[in-house]
Amino acid sequence: MNDTALTHPALLPVGLRDILPPEAELEARSVEAIMDCFAAHGYERVKPPLLEFEDSLFAGSGAATAEQTFRLMDPESQRMMGLRADTTPQIARLAATRLSASPRPLRLAYAGQCLRVRGTDLEPERQIAQAGIELIGLDAATADAEIILTAIEALEAVGLTQLSVDLTVPRLVPDLVDAKLGPVQPAALSRALDRKDSAGVAEHGGAAAPVLLALLEASGLVERAIPLLLAMDLPAPAKAQIARLAETVDVLRAARPELQLTIDPVEFRGYQYHTGICMTVFAAGEQAELGRGGRYLCDNEPATGITLYPDTITRLAPQPKLRPRLYVPFGTKAQDAAAARAKHFATINGLAPHPDPRAEARRLGCSHVFSDGQIVPLA
Amino acid sequence: MNDTALTHPALLPVGLRDILPPEAELEARSVEAIMDCFAAHGYERVKPPLLEFEDSLFAGSGAATAEQTFRLMDPESQRMMGLRADTTPQIARLAATRLSASPRPLRLAYAGQCLRVRGTDLEPERQIAQAGIELIGLDAATADAEIILTAIEALEAVGLTQLSVDLTVPRLVPDLVDAKLGPVQPAALSRALDRKDSAGVAEHGGAAAPVLLALLEASGLVERAIPLLLAMDLPAPAKAQIARLAETVDVLRAARPELQLTIDPVEFRGYQYHTGICMTVFAAGEQAELGRGGRYLCDNEPATGITLYPDTITRLAPQPKLRPRLYVPFGTKAQDAAAARAKHFATINGLAPHPDPRAEARRLGCSHVFSDGQIVPLA
Repeated sequence: MNDTALTHPALLPVGLRDILPPEAELEARSVEAIMDCFAAHGYERVKPPLLEFEDSLFAGSGAATAEQTFRLMDPESQRMMGLRADTTPQIARLAATRLSASPRPLRLAYAGQCLRVRGTDLEPERQIAQAGIELIGLDAATADAEIILTAIEALEAVGLTQLSVDLTVPRLVPDLVDAKLGPVQPAALSRALDRKDSAGVAEHGGAAAPVLLALLEASGLVERAIPLLLAMDLPAPAKAQIARLAETVDVLRAARPELQLTIDPVEFRGYQYHTGICMTVFAAGEQAELGRGGRYLCDNEPATGITLYPDTITRLAPQPKLRPRLYVPFGTKAQDAAAARAKHFATINGLAPHPDPRAEARRLGCSHVFSDGQIVPLA
Repeated sequence: MNDTALTHPALLPVGLRDILPPEAELEARSVEAIMDCFAAHGYERVKPPLLEFEDSLFAGSGAATAEQTFRLMDPESQRMMGLRADTTPQIARLAATRLSASPRPLRLAYAGQCLRVRGTDLEPERQIAQAGIELIGLDAATADAEIILTAIEALEAVGLTQLSVDLTVPRLVPDLVDAKLGPVQPAALSRALDRKDSAGVAEHGGAAAPVLLALLEASGLVERAIPLLLAMDLPAPAKAQIARLAETVDVLRAARPELQLTIDPVEFRGYQYHTGICMTVFAAGEQAELGRGGRYLCDNEPATGITLYPDTITRLAPQPKLRPRLYVPFGTKAQDAAAARAKHFATINGLAPHPDPRAEARRLGCSHVFSDGQIVPLA
């Protein structure tokens, strides 16, 4: 034994942490509830490996994750592998290869860990739990809406209510700027749009400035934003994107009249490979994202999906009731302990006789003790 | 999009694989059932990170995993990290550090993935799911037995019956050989013991040969083996180990009269850091191990634990009934679909009108279709 190292253990690397009781169980329960909801909507679970060759990991939508991916050499093949930083590219690989003959639309679900080379100030974690769904093979507003509605239902299954969905169309601004409205100063314009800075958009937007300012104005609750967007005079491709957004909102509204839906039509950063409607889900009054996703191309197939973040979800969700702890003194009949477990107690077995079972129960953090054939709460 | 890479994807690295429907869900269900059983017995879940600094990962019992561990440089600290090849050393670190003030015995549970640099011929997988428990702070036969009984109950919870537990005392042979019985040829003797080769043991066992041959003879079902072992004339430390084994068997027998229990008293390979009774669990008639564990020192605290292997368990367990798939044609009322999900159906939403919903249901692999307000099985 190298006792020195255990007695004076090194700290964990920045952004990596031990999850202790009861958080680890609460997180696992959240994931189970989310995955059961996904399964109830026909999303079939897959489990790609944590490691794969980097050339498959970085293909397609995976390219965006390359700089965040830990790489290591495979001693078997002498080729470089990556530890996944995101699961969606692996699901896309599966859809395009082993599941290419499966009927479309293909509905897949996953849950697992991802690792990132560096955290950010806002999100220092380098190991991130993900639970998500992908709907592959259909380009329709009903598909965009299904992903959002299923995610909302999964979040409600873990007890989160008062959810809010922010919709974006990240190709809208680049298309408008690139296509026809004249030269702009891209970096300065990006910053201005990102800060919702009207003056900066006016200064750096060039010929596109009036349209971009009108888009900036048309953000917020869909009830106000959609009519403004539909009334704008835009090139045909942009008009089509707005029409699709309006159609998706109609499907969402019909299913969920009470859901808070907002639009941010100038948002485009952080969506490097998305091709259509994207969404971020929040809990009311909280900055942290519960999930994020959107439409993309999966090996030339239309696809959409969303990833939920169990760490954040568990932190914000009401705590489910865990098994109360019952101390079962040494010599208690096995069937009595089994009966208590069937009543949803956790039985803590006394492994030797103890003169004061109540005191021992308290010492072990139990709320109940088995005494004279009864489950007795400790005062 | 890098379509070439997706269209002609690289194979996955040897020993790493995609788990597809329905296996991925079946495995997740197995893990849930196992972890719920562990929780019912008071084992509290923890979740250490996949990566940590190698000097903490390889401390204590972790030293045995060093050559099987993928290492990578942490760009934040410029120190080497390892991807865990086993979870037990991480649990030992937690018990000795952040949970050092928690009451003993400390009962912890975990479930997660491990990665290994190389597979073996028998076990080519390099990503291995683990679900296990550790009982830290008590050196008693009741503790040894609790670990085994809890594992058996967890395996029964996933539908495995006719289980068999092989008990070993890996310090027995080295203690006998080292202590007092004269010089031997260690490598040749190890091979002979490993093959249960009596002639080899006689040839290479030196003065220890008679005792080792008697041990070899005393293997098999506990009903036969324990009396033989108890009757042997052994040095005191070896006698104490046998007495402890017999005591543990008594506790197991009282709780589980029907459980098949065998002893292999000369087994000692593959247990590099174990200090007491070890166990391997099998399903009747199957070679594959369902779980393995034993007693060790956790930063000088007595500890025992067992790791179950969900991959193998899922392969051998009877399949639980997954949700039957119900096609819900476009335009079906949301409450009808929700009612079907509440009845444990997976609803597959029609995302556009279809002229022949039954044909579409079949194409999508559904067993049922929602038609005229009814859930109708497809012929």
